[in-house]
Amino acid sequence: MKVILDCDPGHDDAIAIILAASRISPLELEAITTVAGNVEVEKNTLNALKVCDMIGLESVPVAQGATGPLVRKAVIAEEIHGESGLDGPKLPRHPSKTAIDQHAVDVIIEKLLTTNEPITLIPTGPLTNIALALIKEPRIKNNIREIVLMGGGTFGNWTPAAEFNIYVDAEAAKVVFESGIPIKMFGLDVTHQVLATKQTVADLKSINHTIATFVSELLSFFIQAYKNQFDFDGGPIHDACTVAHLIDPTIFTFDHVHVDIETKGEYSYGMTVIDKHGVTGKQPNVYIAKGLDQGKFWSLFYNAIASYAE
Amino acid sequence: MKVILDCDPGHDDAIAIILAASRISPLELEAITTVAGNVEVEKNTLNALKVCDMIGLESVPVAQGATGPLVRKAVIAEEIHGESGLDGPKLPRHPSKTAIDQHAVDVIIEKLLTTNEPITLIPTGPLTNIALALIKEPRIKNNIREIVLMGGGTFGNWTPAAEFNIYVDAEAAKVVFESGIPIKMFGLDVTHQVLATKQTVADLKSINHTIATFVSELLSFFIQAYKNQFDFDGGPIHDACTVAHLIDPTIFTFDHVHVDIETKGEYSYGMTVIDKHGVTGKQPNVYIAKGLDQGKFWSLFYNAIASYAE
Amino acid sequence: MKVILDCDPGHDDAIAIILAASRISPLELEAITTVAGNVEVEKNTLNALKVCDMIGLESVPVAQGATGPLVRKAVIAEEIHGESGLDGPKLPRHPSKTAIDQHAVDVIIEKLLTTNEPITLIPTGPLTNIALALIKEPRIKNNIREIVLMGGGTFGNWTPAAEFNIYVDAEAAKVVFESGIPIKMFGLDVTHQVLATKQTVADLKSINHTIATFVSELLSFFIQAYKNQFDFDGGPIHDACTVAHLIDPTIFTFDHVHVDIETKGEYSYGMTVIDKHGVTGKQPNVYIAKGLDQGKFWSLFYNAIASYAE
Amino acid sequence: MKVILDCDPGHDDAIAIILAASRISPLELEAITTVAGNVEVEKNTLNALKVCDMIGLESVPVAQGATGPLVRKAVIAEEIHGESGLDGPKLPRHPSKTAIDQHAVDVIIEKLLTTNEPITLIPTGPLTNIALALIKEPRIKNNIREIVLMGGGTFGNWTPAAEFNIYVDAEAAKVVFESGIPIKMFGLDVTHQVLATKQTVADLKSINHTIATFVSELLSFFIQAYKNQFDFDGGPIHDACTVAHLIDPTIFTFDHVHVDIETKGEYSYGMTVIDKHGVTGKQPNVYIAKGLDQGKFWSLFYNAIASYAE
Repeated sequence: MKVILDCDPGHDDAIAIILAASRISPLELEAITTVAGNVEVEKNTLNALKVCDMIGLESVPVAQGATGPLVRKAVIAEEIHGESGLDGPKLPRHPSKTAIDQHAVDVIIEKLLTTNEPITLIPTGPLTNIALALIKEPRIKNNIREIVLMGGGTFGNWTPAAEFNIYVDAEAAKVVFESGIPIKMFGLDVTHQVLATKQTVADLKSINHTIATFVSELLSFFIQAYKNQFDFDGGPIHDACTVAHLIDPTIFTFDHVHVDIETKGEYSYGMTVIDKHGVTGKQPNVYIAKGLDQGKFWSLFYNAIASYAE
Repeated sequence: MKVILDCDPGHDDAIAIILAASRISPLELEAITTVAGNVEVEKNTLNALKVCDMIGLESVPVAQGATGPLVRKAVIAEEIHGESGLDGPKLPRHPSKTAIDQHAVDVIIEKLLTTNEPITLIPTGPLTNIALALIKEPRIKNNIREIVLMGGGTFGNWTPAAEFNIYVDAEAAKVVFESGIPIKMFGLDVTHQVLATKQTVADLKSINHTIATFVSELLSFFIQAYKNQFDFDGGPIHDACTVAHLIDPTIFTFDHVHVDIETKGEYSYGMTVIDKHGVTGKQPNVYIAKGLDQGKFWSLFYNAIASYAE
Repeated sequence: MKVILDCDPGHDDAIAIILAASRISPLELEAITTVAGNVEVEKNTLNALKVCDMIGLESVPVAQGATGPLVRKAVIAEEIHGESGLDGPKLPRHPSKTAIDQHAVDVIIEKLLTTNEPITLIPTGPLTNIALALIKEPRIKNNIREIVLMGGGTFGNWTPAAEFNIYVDAEAAKVVFESGIPIKMFGLDVTHQVLATKQTVADLKSINHTIATFVSELLSFFIQAYKNQFDFDGGPIHDACTVAHLIDPTIFTFDHVHVDIETKGEYSYGMTVIDKHGVTGKQPNVYIAKGLDQGKFWSLFYNAIASYAE
Repeated sequence: MKVILDCDPGHDDAIAIILAASRISPLELEAITTVAGNVEVEKNTLNALKVCDMIGLESVPVAQGATGPLVRKAVIAEEIHGESGLDGPKLPRHPSKTAIDQHAVDVIIEKLLTTNEPITLIPTGPLTNIALALIKEPRIKNNIREIVLMGGGTFGNWTPAAEFNIYVDAEAAKVVFESGIPIKMFGLDVTHQVLATKQTVADLKSINHTIATFVSELLSFFIQAYKNQFDFDGGPIHDACTVAHLIDPTIFTFDHVHVDIETKGEYSYGMTVIDKHGVTGKQPNVYIAKGLDQGKFWSLFYNAIASYAE
């Protein structure tokens, strides 16, 4: 199954990459594209390259994308991901490979226009690149199997109403959600159920392999950041849910609902307005993940990471 | 404890009145004021008068208020309350008493300016009357003990984001929520936990008294309306929660949070934007009810209704 | 012709009162009501009373109204009118009469419900009182002959898009403009053509009468304020245009157009969106003044003021 | 002087091209790029190619751009430009050359990143392409001499507040106006002063040359469309003003002001909020054309067209 991972690593983005590239994954990574989000796009690109280095992912092109949202000023989340965007683990200052010399948006467009089978897009950051690709070349729609994204929810984390990824570029989200392309959305309702804890960190360390240790260090930092910022007892591995679902579609359950993106609100800019009870009468346009089989998820999680040690 | 009940009966408003006037209630009803909401204000007034008749509440003045919202066009909820606003029970066409010849807004202002102790306001409909009173005579603030209202929630019933009472007049809600007056809010998060069922109807009928039978007929209609409109297995007695809390403050639990009212949104007009996790850094201005002791609530509910039979 | 003058004096409001009460005026002043606007309502009321004193207007009741806008926080214009709201002329600290003990909104409602002929409303401040009266008692509509107001324009003075009176309470303006009542609007397009100059001040002084001198002092201050704030070579006697029109309907020319009030815009809150070329296809709801016969206006202006000296 | 003309021909866009490519023009056309606007982008591209054919402009690449606005649904203006976007003159069904196989946005970016001198952008349609280029590759800013655009005004033609080009994609306009790049804006205030009349048509015909005749036919249709839609006595050659200014900078006069783009308003979406009197205190970001020397303009206009006959 061909996929493009559009991300802003980011601790949980990094884990999404690691799951996607693991030996148990059937996903064929066409490209990793980066976008401004958790931190500036240059840092996100550097982080993506370092993660590729770490896991020996040499053949997949990494392409840098938008430096900021479509219309609004950029917002970043250093409180959660640290100054580098991937604080915690020790990483080489310079990755061995570099991003390709093509804009992420053009990589997405080219891959989609030249593919012989539909490609699934996995955006785990703000939707700027995906929206830009759709605006620049609407014909790509026909070759997108579906968009499996992390973002939104019935509540927010950046404002009371809005989740970070959608908040950063709600106009881009509006473009994507109104595109007619099949969408699966992993919002905070479900990702807050996927909590890494100190036990997770310990379990990963016990695998005793560089990649498992790397993930344990990512999570250790992330768990602490969530403790500090939100007083959470665990770190939600938001972005990894998308990839986990694509590896094993039986983990998560979904509702098929209509979702609108609020771009005008005084207090609700960036909200995913989810019509759970069908009061709008609008056709459903999104499958939102609502629950998961915890056993299956964590089993897949450890198996994927352990697969690197084999 | 002096209270003014500002309502739009409405099945659950009627039950709020019945609880407030029951023998087990310590509430001193200064007035019942009506507002456009569930149906047109004239119908709501008529319904309030009929409920007073039914329970022998002669001394409490009923005053009619605003015919529609501050700024927007009126919206009504006939789907839920029927054409009369109180469909279900057989009621006399003409109540024996009439509303007093003073506008609800002036009754609220006069009561508050002449009282010798603070008065609690209990709005169970749109907040138009309360906002008008505050705009017309800001000095009343000092004599309002608190506003204990039904409205809002982290999700909606009229739109995906907005509950009916707030949606109908979000500008009025903004005035009230920004007033600085202590507010307790019973939103859908808690009122959807207070469900009357067929068993409730049966239990009330078995009391074998006109008022219990009246309430059972109200709930029978209401349960069916919620089944039809929302596919609910039970009818949420929204408005009665406010009065139940004032009779027994140990029933409900609360969070102290900041709430903003969205009046600009394209898809979220009328939303109560609730900062549950304190991400805005704004001072809490509302106690929102979050849970209840079901045993205590239903015990109070039956005792209040049964007290009319004594 | 019965009129109610709803104002926030204010230099040009004061002149409006003086014209309305002059011997050449056919207007029958039912009441002068005040509203928060140029300065706080208490100051505006005091100023109205002082102006009444000055011109011997004893029989007309002055009633105080809203202390601030319907929904938003109050904004004042001390830059233009000084701290007292009527800086410039020396005035007694305490007027000889006081405001009546009835809220302006109730005065407006009572006058309209009990009149034997339609009454013209002349709002020269924010439209809060008029909107409140319409919300509280919609039946008054039938007895309003027309609303002749100062406000709005195709450009602004408080923001690039909004004129002060409408900006202060755009929600109230929306209520009034959507009410269906006949409206004549004197916006900045026309009032900026009605400029008092140093010559006007000199001409008034030469009349050599207390009231003419008072007006000359008002204008002297006002002209300077407009010089300082807007670099204008003259002071626009905005509010007086309304009364001048009612005294002599041949002075001003009008277009019949549709006007919407912007309450949502980021940069255009409080704008009167005027469909001069009929591109919206909406029915005209407002006569906007567009031009005037300068000779007729100034002749009326001097005659009215001179009439006090007779 | 290197320029890129970004347009949606469109009668007045066609004339802009003709002036720019005339023998009296010092402009070096780097590219003509097209955008959805007056009609669909495919039609606009075809029209651009036909105009190039008509005037023998072979060496300038034509590149097709965005098929619709950044965020909103597309709006077109067939009422003004006819079904083809260039109704009126008889034109060959198939132009002899085709658009290059590169997206307009990438042409703009590439030209700007590889130029040895700053390039002036001349957008005469919606600002979608320019905004996309700025979002995709912010480094181009340094090589843009200025943006000389047709759009906006203190009043609208598509809505009472908004001119068509800005209305179609106000989000794109916001990106451009907030970019910090020097901007000259030719809005309706000035373009409505540049009216082609039946005399213009006759004068052009008398030149007796295919290109002059072509322009006369364009204007003949355009004048009639403005008569029908707006009851104008003349057709405003909006877009040509930009090019005329660049050929002769002494024709138009300008004010240096701050302009904000309204993207939230209920009735004012797409408005250029122009702070003519500096009430916002914001730094000027736009030179808006306010007047012109009619003699100079029309002299340039005829000379340019006549130059093709030499």
